[in-house]
Amino acid sequence: MGDAMNRLLLGLCILLRAARGDAADPLPSWNDVAIKKSIVQFVERVTTKDSPDYVDPAQRIAVFDNDGTLWSEKPIYFQGMFVSDRIHQLAPDHPEWKTQFPFSAVLSGDMARVLQASQSDMMQMVMATHAGTTTEEFDAIAKQWLETARHPQTGRLYTEMVFQPMLELLAYLRANEFRVFIVSGGGVDFVRAFSERIYGIPPEQVVGSRLKTSYEVRDGKPVILRLPELDFLDDKTGKPVGIHEHIGRRPIFAVGNSDGDFQMLEWTTSGDGPHFGMLIHHTDASREFAYDRNTSVGELDKALDEAPQRGWQLVDMKDDWKVVYPPGNAVK
Amino acid sequence: MGDAMNRLLLGLCILLRAARGDAADPLPSWNDVAIKKSIVQFVERVTTKDSPDYVDPAQRIAVFDNDGTLWSEKPIYFQGMFVSDRIHQLAPDHPEWKTQFPFSAVLSGDMARVLQASQSDMMQMVMATHAGTTTEEFDAIAKQWLETARHPQTGRLYTEMVFQPMLELLAYLRANEFRVFIVSGGGVDFVRAFSERIYGIPPEQVVGSRLKTSYEVRDGKPVILRLPELDFLDDKTGKPVGIHEHIGRRPIFAVGNSDGDFQMLEWTTSGDGPHFGMLIHHTDASREFAYDRNTSVGELDKALDEAPQRGWQLVDMKDDWKVVYPPGNAVK
Repeated sequence: MGDAMNRLLLGLCILLRAARGDAADPLPSWNDVAIKKSIVQFVERVTTKDSPDYVDPAQRIAVFDNDGTLWSEKPIYFQGMFVSDRIHQLAPDHPEWKTQFPFSAVLSGDMARVLQASQSDMMQMVMATHAGTTTEEFDAIAKQWLETARHPQTGRLYTEMVFQPMLELLAYLRANEFRVFIVSGGGVDFVRAFSERIYGIPPEQVVGSRLKTSYEVRDGKPVILRLPELDFLDDKTGKPVGIHEHIGRRPIFAVGNSDGDFQMLEWTTSGDGPHFGMLIHHTDASREFAYDRNTSVGELDKALDEAPQRGWQLVDMKDDWKVVYPPGNAVK
Repeated sequence: MGDAMNRLLLGLCILLRAARGDAADPLPSWNDVAIKKSIVQFVERVTTKDSPDYVDPAQRIAVFDNDGTLWSEKPIYFQGMFVSDRIHQLAPDHPEWKTQFPFSAVLSGDMARVLQASQSDMMQMVMATHAGTTTEEFDAIAKQWLETARHPQTGRLYTEMVFQPMLELLAYLRANEFRVFIVSGGGVDFVRAFSERIYGIPPEQVVGSRLKTSYEVRDGKPVILRLPELDFLDDKTGKPVGIHEHIGRRPIFAVGNSDGDFQMLEWTTSGDGPHFGMLIHHTDASREFAYDRNTSVGELDKALDEAPQRGWQLVDMKDDWKVVYPPGNAVK
């Protein structure tokens, strides 16, 4: 049989698999748009044994940004809301914070001033609210906050502000033997406090920013202490570095939403062999938030410009998603 | 039915499972000694649904040291042989090394002097032989070395100096839904060059020491560069820190062989719930190497003293293992 005939038969196989797939739609919250077909066709190509693009399951690594990609990030990163709430909680032990910027701005509710804080001011707040505990204490604090803290605009729990279509995408990839990692600029241990329960992504598959930690034995009990010192920032050029440190393989599928994900997508889509890069474009002012360029949180500018020539695909949240959040008590 | 009756029936179930297991021995290279029964009983306890010690698969994390635990480490860490061979390979580009210690000692074959090198001298050699390449170049260099480099005493390839009984233990744990990690003081990327092929442990499940890396685009091609700067030393108190950074869960099963693994075992066996800590004791001068206290590489001293009171179990390589290395071209 000629090579052309082989290709035709293989193409038919892939189409048939995709068609059979339609009978049980793995991505029911996605409209039948080009990006959805593109995702499914990519997964079919890399999982079909005789396909020239077949990828061994061991190499099927998918990486996802978290803030703005798997859940919302407005008005600020939700971890920023955690910092703010924690400053309020710890304030009784820190009377000096009443007059010390940036703590004073947080305590007086002056969010506009807080957003003007310099990077070192931000770092000061992170240290004050994230260090000085053991790893187990921090996990309990974060979990407890997530159980009750609600978004100021939607009234939803933050863990209810995850993107239903993305939950389906994570499940679809897992069902096709992808190993799915989060690669976040946020704190790795903050994300780990909810990633398994909400996304089905276990702690060992979360890559994120880190404080330094140290091992100690206190009263005969070993603990790991969180120190007030930055160890690693998992953002921009840091993302491929974090991916190499933690995963040790180049991913073949990467999804982000901002310029902080540029290098992660660039690294993923520069590999030999099949690869897929995608950006979530926040276009839906009505059901979520609309932003891209010129925004303090989640700016999407250079990546948006270069996406076409780099073959990075865009998700238009307004047009492409039937729903944004999972069903629940939505105020918005 | 009374509680005592329940316990009796459960105990019978576990014994029956273990007995059935004997028909297809998962650890054929282990003699029928107490430590073997101990391993099997632990695995049965944590995997039997009605057992009070049942552990959900997601929590079944096992950590293994590499040097001296999964493969030999004499006369020095095999990565040290890699450093030495690489110095010889790079020497033509470094005429100054002929007279510069410690490079001069390596080039003149003066191993006794090399072993006297200070920590900063050792670090100099590591930097010279491990930095200045991209991550992909380094992986290729390490893989190429492993294909041909042979142990000076046994004549085996270094990858043939892995411990057959430990390969069986890794497979047994995997078959029981454990996720198995290496936690090594050696370089993470050196270990990754062979861990998947030889141990079935993929790169994302290797925790090790690291150099700093940086992401760059060279001539339009993204690369990750290995820098001459230590990022993290995954030894002693570093091991639980590395485990937390990378895995984010406390393991329930830990195996090491030296005092460098003390804290890893201490951390693992201090958790609530079932746990298992084990040390490989090098007692076999005939088939491998006999050493414990007062040795420059792989010293086992404090951990050996405290093992009994801490419930850490010992493997006596001479008595407990039917074979040491996999079948192959053994000179020794």
